[in-house]
Amino acid sequence: MKTVRIALCQINPTVGDFSGNVKKIVKSIEDAGSYKPDIIAFPELAVTGYPPEDLLFKPQFIEDNLNALGEIRKKVGDFVVIAGFVDKKDDIYNAAAVIHNKKIVDVYHKIRLPNYGVFDEYRYFQAGTRYPVYEMGDVMFGVTICEDIWYPEGPAAVQALEGAEFIININASPYHMGKSHSREKMLSVRASDSSVIVAYLNTVGGQDELVFDGHSLVVDENGDVIAVAKQFEEDMIIIDLDLDAVFIKRLRDPRRRQQVISLGKGKIEKIIIEREKGRKGEREKASPIPSPIHRFTDSPIPVEEEVYNALVLGTRDYILKNGFKKVCIGLSGGIDSSVVAAVAVDAVGKENVAGIFMPSPYTSKESGEDVDELSKNLGIKVIEEPINDIFDSYLKTLKSEFGDLPPDATEENLQARIRGNILMAFSNKFGRLVLTTGNKSEMSVGYATLYGDMAGGFAVIKDVPKTLVYGICRWKNMNEGRTIIPERVLCKEPSAELKPGQKDIDTLPPYEVLDPILKAYIEEDKSFDEIVNMGCEEDCAKKVIKMVDASEYKRRQAPPGIKITPRAFGRDRRFPITNRYKSY
Amino acid sequence: MKTVRIALCQINPTVGDFSGNVKKIVKSIEDAGSYKPDIIAFPELAVTGYPPEDLLFKPQFIEDNLNALGEIRKKVGDFVVIAGFVDKKDDIYNAAAVIHNKKIVDVYHKIRLPNYGVFDEYRYFQAGTRYPVYEMGDVMFGVTICEDIWYPEGPAAVQALEGAEFIININASPYHMGKSHSREKMLSVRASDSSVIVAYLNTVGGQDELVFDGHSLVVDENGDVIAVAKQFEEDMIIIDLDLDAVFIKRLRDPRRRQQVISLGKGKIEKIIIEREKGRKGEREKASPIPSPIHRFTDSPIPVEEEVYNALVLGTRDYILKNGFKKVCIGLSGGIDSSVVAAVAVDAVGKENVAGIFMPSPYTSKESGEDVDELSKNLGIKVIEEPINDIFDSYLKTLKSEFGDLPPDATEENLQARIRGNILMAFSNKFGRLVLTTGNKSEMSVGYATLYGDMAGGFAVIKDVPKTLVYGICRWKNMNEGRTIIPERVLCKEPSAELKPGQKDIDTLPPYEVLDPILKAYIEEDKSFDEIVNMGCEEDCAKKVIKMVDASEYKRRQAPPGIKITPRAFGRDRRFPITNRYKSY
Repeated sequence: MKTVRIALCQINPTVGDFSGNVKKIVKSIEDAGSYKPDIIAFPELAVTGYPPEDLLFKPQFIEDNLNALGEIRKKVGDFVVIAGFVDKKDDIYNAAAVIHNKKIVDVYHKIRLPNYGVFDEYRYFQAGTRYPVYEMGDVMFGVTICEDIWYPEGPAAVQALEGAEFIININASPYHMGKSHSREKMLSVRASDSSVIVAYLNTVGGQDELVFDGHSLVVDENGDVIAVAKQFEEDMIIIDLDLDAVFIKRLRDPRRRQQVISLGKGKIEKIIIEREKGRKGEREKASPIPSPIHRFTDSPIPVEEEVYNALVLGTRDYILKNGFKKVCIGLSGGIDSSVVAAVAVDAVGKENVAGIFMPSPYTSKESGEDVDELSKNLGIKVIEEPINDIFDSYLKTLKSEFGDLPPDATEENLQARIRGNILMAFSNKFGRLVLTTGNKSEMSVGYATLYGDMAGGFAVIKDVPKTLVYGICRWKNMNEGRTIIPERVLCKEPSAELKPGQKDIDTLPPYEVLDPILKAYIEEDKSFDEIVNMGCEEDCAKKVIKMVDASEYKRRQAPPGIKITPRAFGRDRRFPITNRYKSY
Repeated sequence: MKTVRIALCQINPTVGDFSGNVKKIVKSIEDAGSYKPDIIAFPELAVTGYPPEDLLFKPQFIEDNLNALGEIRKKVGDFVVIAGFVDKKDDIYNAAAVIHNKKIVDVYHKIRLPNYGVFDEYRYFQAGTRYPVYEMGDVMFGVTICEDIWYPEGPAAVQALEGAEFIININASPYHMGKSHSREKMLSVRASDSSVIVAYLNTVGGQDELVFDGHSLVVDENGDVIAVAKQFEEDMIIIDLDLDAVFIKRLRDPRRRQQVISLGKGKIEKIIIEREKGRKGEREKASPIPSPIHRFTDSPIPVEEEVYNALVLGTRDYILKNGFKKVCIGLSGGIDSSVVAAVAVDAVGKENVAGIFMPSPYTSKESGEDVDELSKNLGIKVIEEPINDIFDSYLKTLKSEFGDLPPDATEENLQARIRGNILMAFSNKFGRLVLTTGNKSEMSVGYATLYGDMAGGFAVIKDVPKTLVYGICRWKNMNEGRTIIPERVLCKEPSAELKPGQKDIDTLPPYEVLDPILKAYIEEDKSFDEIVNMGCEEDCAKKVIKMVDASEYKRRQAPPGIKITPRAFGRDRRFPITNRYKSY
C-alpha cells in the first residue's frame, strides 16, 4: 500500500514572540520526529502569530520573521516541514515555506486574501499567483493557506487535478459558534469533488478578540473525516494517508475528466523534493502511531460547552500572553459576573481570581448571599468594599451645581463608576487584570456604564447574548455535577440594583424577546420592516434599534472581548459613531 | 472661444442623513443654477456621507441611498449633475451618477479602491472596470473618483487620451498635515501629463476621526492651479474652462502620440449627452460668475493655523452631528486643556463651553490662576469642584485592603478618575459632551489615565504632538492679536500635579526629544536601530518604544479624536494588544 505519514502540529503561537514561537515549533518537530513522519506541518503564520496586524508595516518585523524561519530551517532533516511565515519579495506575502534537509525548497503564497469580518489581508499582503505541486518520490501533494480552500475553483482543485494526492491546508481560522460544522462540510465536499485527501491544520489559542479553536482534521478522498484534533487545545495528528485509495477513487470518478476541461491547466509548477533515503527510509525505527488518533465524539458537543471552552481559552491567553497572572472581578450576585468568575477560575485557577463585592444602599441582601455562595462554590476569595461613603462624598461635592435636581441616570452611573474605580485601584495596586462582566445584549443596547461596569482590561462575555449566558450556566452546573452558579442567581429577575426596585425589564424588553431582535439587526443586517415581520411589535423594534444605534460611542471605548458569534463588536463590525441613519 | 461652465459644490454631508444630504444637494443645484453652469458636481458618496463603513452591509441602507439619488434626479434640468452614491448591480460600487434632464445617463464605478490607512474599501465595494467618456455637444469629459486620479496610468489618463478635455474628479479625501501640498503637486502633474483640465472636488466636514478639508481646486492643462475653494468650509467654485487651450496644448504636446502606444485603448465607452438647447443655451440669462473665484493666498498658511482649523471643524461637526450643543472640559491650568477650550469656543461658541476646574491638594495656586485667566480670555464660565473629600473617602474605603502600602500610581490614577467621574456626571446631568484633553505624545506613551483624563466623548488633540500644541497656542495668540492662552501656561514646566513636585520630565524625556522618536516609531515604522542612528540615546529609545508598545490597551479604549498626521491612532493604526514583539 502506498502511504505517506504526516504530522499536523496544532500549536498556540503568540503574536510577535519570535523566539517563543520558534522554540515551540522546534520542540514539535522533535516530538513528531519519533514517528518518522514524511511531512510535519505548522499553521498559517505560525512564525509570527496571527493576526500580526500593523506590525507587518515594520520592515524590522519582517526581517525578524525571516530570521526566525532560518532558525527553523536548520532543524529540518530528511523530511519536509511546512510552516506559515511572511515572505518578502517585491511585496510581502502570507506564505508557507516548504523545507527539506535545511533547505527552503519552495514558498507558497496565499492566493485568496480575506478582507471581510475581522480580516484585513488586502491591507497587508500581495496575493500569490502560483499553483505549485510538490513531487516527493512517488508522492505528489499541494500546500494551500486558509481561505484558498474555500473557493471551489481555487488552488487545491487545480493542484489535485495536476496530480496532488493530498493537500496540506494550513489555517488561522477564528472560532464562532457553528463554524466548525460548516467548515467540516465544506472540506468534505472539496475533498470528494477533487478526489483528494485534505489535511486541514488550524492554529489554536486566543489573540485579543479572537479565539482559534484548533480542531484540525483530515478528510479522505470520499469526504469522510478520518482524524480530528482536540478543540481549544494544542494537539498533534499523526496519520498515514492511504494514497492507493486516492488513485482508485480517481479512476472511478466520472467527474474527473470533465474537470480537466472546466478548470483548465495553467500556472502550475512542479517542484521536485529529492530525499536521501526515500519516503520510508527510517520508518522501521519509528515509534508506533499513538492510538487512538481519531477522536470522534458520539454526539456533537452542546453549543454551551463549546462557547464556554472558547471563553476559557480566550480569557486564559489574554491574561497570560499579556503578562498577567491574577485577575479581579466585580461580583454583584448577578448571573453575568458569576459566569465570568467561573470562566476565570477555569482559565487561571481559583487561587488567581479575586471577587470584589461593592454593595450600595440599593444592593439586596440576597445579592450578598449569592456572592458568598458563588465564591464558596468556586473556592475564590471575596473582598467587600461598600461604596456608600464614596457615593455620599460625590453627592455632597456635586450638590453645589446639581442643587435639587431630581436623581436620574447620573446618580446610577456614578455608582457604577465608583465600582469601576475601586476595581482599577485594585488592579493598579496589586497588578490584577480587571475582567468586565457585560454581556452582548447589554453591550448592544448600551445598558452599561462607560468607565463603570465597562471599566477593565478584558470583556469575557461581551459577545455572549444574555439568553446564552443562562444556558451556559445551566450547562456548567450540570457538567460539574454540582452547583457552581447558585440556583437563585439563575432564577431571580435581572437587576442592575442602581436604584430602588430597579429591574432590567423596566428599561429593556425581556431577554427572550430582545436577543432575537439583536441577532437579526446586528448579525444579520435585517431592516426594521423585516424585524417587525419576524413578529416583533413595532414600538419594541424601534426602541431596540434606537438603543443599538445610539450606543456606538460606548462600544468604541469598550475593552476587547472574545468573538463567539458570526459578528462580534470590535474589528468585526465597523460602525460610524456619527451616523444619522434611521431604518424605521 | 470654446468653453464649458462647471460648478464644483464643496458640501458637508452627514453619514446616513439621506434627507439632510438630499436637501443640501438640491439647494446647491438651485444656488448654482443662477450661473447656468453646464455641469454641477458633488463629492464622492455625497448622498450617503463618507465613510458609511458597515452601514453598507445593510440592504435597506443601499435602497434608501438609491431612493435619495432618485430625489436628486428629479431636480436636474437641461444640465449635467454628477453626484457620488452607492450603486447596486451584482455587487455594490462606489459610484458617480451622471444625470441629465431627470435621467441617469451613466454611472461611473470607482476603479482604484483604497484599502490602506483609514480606508477599507475592499471590505465593501467591487472595483469598476469601465472607462467612460462623455460627449456633450462638442465637449468631451471624464468623471473619476478619488483614488482613481492617484494612478498615473489610471482612468483619467485613458479618458484624456480618448478625447476628454477635462476630468471631474470627485473626492472624500481626509486631511492630514502636508497632504494638500502633495495633492496639488500630483494633480498638477496628472493634468500636464495628459494635457487635460482636472477639476478636483473634495467633500468638507468632520466624521468621527476624519476631517475632510475641502480645498477643491481646478488645474489647467499646463498644471497651473486656476481656482481654489476654501479649506475647512463649504464653498462653491464656478468657472469657465477654456477648452481651446486644451486643444492647442495637445497639438504641441510631443508626448501625446507616444502615450497612445503605451496606454493603449480599451474598455472605453462613449456616452452621448444630448442637450435640448445646447451648451450655451441660456447662458445669456446667467448671473455673472462671482469674482474673485480664485482664492490664492500670497504665502502658504502656517501648519499651526491649518491644524487649528482642522481641529475646530472636526470638533464642531462631532458635537453637532451627534446632536449635542454644549460641551464641558476639565481645565487644569495646563496647555493641553487650554488649547482644547480655545478650539471648543471657536467650534460652538463661548456660551456653549463650560470649564470644570477640579483642584486636589497637589494643585498649585498658579494652576488656579491660569484657569481663571484662560476662562476670562475665552469668555467661558468655570465651575470649581475640589476633589479632596472624594479622594479621602476612596482612601478610607480602600484602607482595609491597601493597609500601609506606599502610595504609587494607584493614588495618582484615582485622582484622575475622580475628575473623569465628575466630568461624566456633568455630562449625564446637563447633556454636555465631555471633550478630553490628551495630546498625541501622551497617548503614544500611555502618560494618561484610562477612565480618568481619558474619559470623554471626543479627544480633540489626540493626534497633535505636544511640541505642536505649543506652536498652535503661540499661533493662536498671535493670530488673535491678544493673549488667549496665558503666557505662563506657555512657559511653565508641564506637570500632571498628581503628587507633590511632579513634573512630566520625571517620567518622560523632554518633549523636544520625545516627539521626533514618536514620529519615527509610530508614523514611519522606524526600528530601534534606526532611531538610535537618528542620534537618540539607546536607553531613551528603548524606554520610549517600551512605553508605546505597552499602552496599546489604553489607546484601544480611548475616545475618537481628529486625525491630523499621516498616521493617527484608531482606524489608521491597527495594532494587536497581545503582542510580544520587541524590536530592541
